[in-house]
Amino acid sequence: MARINDNYRKLQAGYLFPEIGRRVRAFQAANPKAAIIRLGIGDVTLPLAPAVVEALHGAVDDMSRAETFQGYPPENGYDFLVNAILEHDFRARGVELAKEEVFVSDGSKQDSANIQEIFGLDCSFVVTDPVYPVYVDTNVMAGRTGAAGKGGRYAGITYLPADESNDFMPDPPSEALDLAYLCSPNNPTGAVASRENLAKWVDWARASDAVILFDAAYDAFIQDDALPHSIYEIPGATECAIEMRSFSKRAGFTGVRCAYTVVPKALTGKAANGERVPLRDLWARRMATKFNGVPYIVQRAAAAVFSDAGRKQTAEQVAHYMENARLIREGLRAAGFTAYAGEHAPYIWLRTPDGTTSWEFFDQLLERAHVVGTPGAGFGAAGEGFFRISAFNSRANVDEAIARIQRAFGR
Amino acid sequence: MARINDNYRKLQAGYLFPEIGRRVRAFQAANPKAAIIRLGIGDVTLPLAPAVVEALHGAVDDMSRAETFQGYPPENGYDFLVNAILEHDFRARGVELAKEEVFVSDGSKQDSANIQEIFGLDCSFVVTDPVYPVYVDTNVMAGRTGAAGKGGRYAGITYLPADESNDFMPDPPSEALDLAYLCSPNNPTGAVASRENLAKWVDWARASDAVILFDAAYDAFIQDDALPHSIYEIPGATECAIEMRSFSKRAGFTGVRCAYTVVPKALTGKAANGERVPLRDLWARRMATKFNGVPYIVQRAAAAVFSDAGRKQTAEQVAHYMENARLIREGLRAAGFTAYAGEHAPYIWLRTPDGTTSWEFFDQLLERAHVVGTPGAGFGAAGEGFFRISAFNSRANVDEAIARIQRAFGR
Repeated sequence: MARINDNYRKLQAGYLFPEIGRRVRAFQAANPKAAIIRLGIGDVTLPLAPAVVEALHGAVDDMSRAETFQGYPPENGYDFLVNAILEHDFRARGVELAKEEVFVSDGSKQDSANIQEIFGLDCSFVVTDPVYPVYVDTNVMAGRTGAAGKGGRYAGITYLPADESNDFMPDPPSEALDLAYLCSPNNPTGAVASRENLAKWVDWARASDAVILFDAAYDAFIQDDALPHSIYEIPGATECAIEMRSFSKRAGFTGVRCAYTVVPKALTGKAANGERVPLRDLWARRMATKFNGVPYIVQRAAAAVFSDAGRKQTAEQVAHYMENARLIREGLRAAGFTAYAGEHAPYIWLRTPDGTTSWEFFDQLLERAHVVGTPGAGFGAAGEGFFRISAFNSRANVDEAIARIQRAFGR
Repeated sequence: MARINDNYRKLQAGYLFPEIGRRVRAFQAANPKAAIIRLGIGDVTLPLAPAVVEALHGAVDDMSRAETFQGYPPENGYDFLVNAILEHDFRARGVELAKEEVFVSDGSKQDSANIQEIFGLDCSFVVTDPVYPVYVDTNVMAGRTGAAGKGGRYAGITYLPADESNDFMPDPPSEALDLAYLCSPNNPTGAVASRENLAKWVDWARASDAVILFDAAYDAFIQDDALPHSIYEIPGATECAIEMRSFSKRAGFTGVRCAYTVVPKALTGKAANGERVPLRDLWARRMATKFNGVPYIVQRAAAAVFSDAGRKQTAEQVAHYMENARLIREGLRAAGFTAYAGEHAPYIWLRTPDGTTSWEFFDQLLERAHVVGTPGAGFGAAGEGFFRISAFNSRANVDEAIARIQRAFGR
């Protein structure tokens, strides 16, 4: 008798974005003429940069000729991509990593979902709240939590509320725990961790023998060069942190699919017999057994992001989205909203007005302005009363969305 | 204190193909002039078909323009691909499936690795032996087995030896178990399941309330139209089977990455409280939470495989490999080997001569003929004494490999 994984039944509702999709489709069906503007899911809108397009065409040509055809990709990524990552994402910021520490993948969502597999089911863990749902849901599915209680919080998880009192970037907990999920620039709040904040987390992790799972998928949006892009800019972090990075947002790759995870060789976990085991070797084994590499053409496209032209063109894309973010933040403030972030991340985090719940505000925004955002409650109990607006759209749509919001909600 | 997943420590040696890679690199380093011919890993060598190349270029152009740019792919695949799959892979063989039952992914390896996640950790399971290592290793990593014993067999797994006595396609076990991994055409033995054999498995699964995980990644190599390509050609299978299919071998996509899994809506598993839960919904939740879709350009390429030109061109590729398989099988027999299969699959399965172990024969073949194959023992205890030769290579390399083998081993 095939028994199901009963942990799945603890999961609350559907995954957030499918639920938003369902509500939007229902509204559109009932209001076929409404020109809905989507500032909900954080999906890019600008076409791929010319340097990336050129690399893709070249790679397709390689695949069309026997002499240059590529079969199974190398397990952890082609050297041409891994070396570019090491050079531009790390060495340029003073961080030296080895080739074997980088694992090219098809997405940071996947990596942040899968990374928990290499840890024991008895590991305790902490998330900041609101939280990217994948961190929580994948641990629920693995059986590392109890049931959900009020507000959707699961028994067995330590939640650290992120709010105005801590600039939306909590300090580490006072107690020792085994794993910590951190995301900076943060999805959904748009907040960014300072060097001091990350240093506290690294100190805490080393004191607790904990591992930090650091999601830096949005690092390209950091506008202040003094802020850390990588947790490895903090001394000691290679002994306590795994880092995830992505091409999705920095280069418009949400439909191209490329990311990578760094697992330093110095990082170990404890086996049942007390031995220290390099986590890098466990992740390598996980990837060799359950993954088959990123398409050659996609890796060529990702490498082109690091070319002179690619860096310039993708920086212009980031600048476009960040100007959108500024316009949204200022436009919301002019309409009387309390709006945060949007300075080092493509997300605005706003307080819903007058005690409206975040799903109520979702429906109001859709009905009155035909604008889609993301309810804060979808990201956790501490997200209730907040709402995420994404800066990923055309300038014309952003201008129109702000104008509609000001007409519908302006005071 | 971060504890590791101790189940990983039960795994035997490295994953098979990395181990082969290490031995080949060491041999090449010691013998830099040796022109090694690789008939080991089942990796395609022909360049992509022209229809696929054209679709890729077109899709890259789509990604270069705002009007046609594609962000996150639909969760379970674009309609244009899913509809082509339903039409050509199923309706053409008399099988009606619904769109929501098909999940496009980046590989059958991944799907066959991940599918166990939706089942309870207490599920018992059966594999045929020799076995594609991913089925076993992923269950070891999840904690569904005990430690490995003699010959590498893990406690808690039911192994059904596949050998001459059952034409390398075992009948179902006499006892009821919860899950069964079947692969036809089989990797590594190259054997293919008859309709009668699959019907026995379906009967067994329905009687046991078991789920069959049917890996048909090699179905395109079946040469006899009367043999089933899909397990759903067997009445009742939609109530007891999940099927995995791939573009890797049928269209040379090992470096392009596209596959799909079918989870019929009629298929259910039992929850702890006795309720029947549709496995399709669990898999949908798993994919929504841990996956982000297959690149748009890759899905366009996969859809082109189903065009008139694409079907003709990829059929010619399959015919090329199958003629290689015939030449290898006959060449090995002429050299005195006992060689099986290669009729409905791109693999020859041969008995190692004179009681040589399969890793010994691996080294002999490499040293004496500079040919790489795959040791049967790498696929399980019942693979000892056998050896897999892959038909994926150029005709010139196949001819040369056979000539060398005949010189080195011919009697």
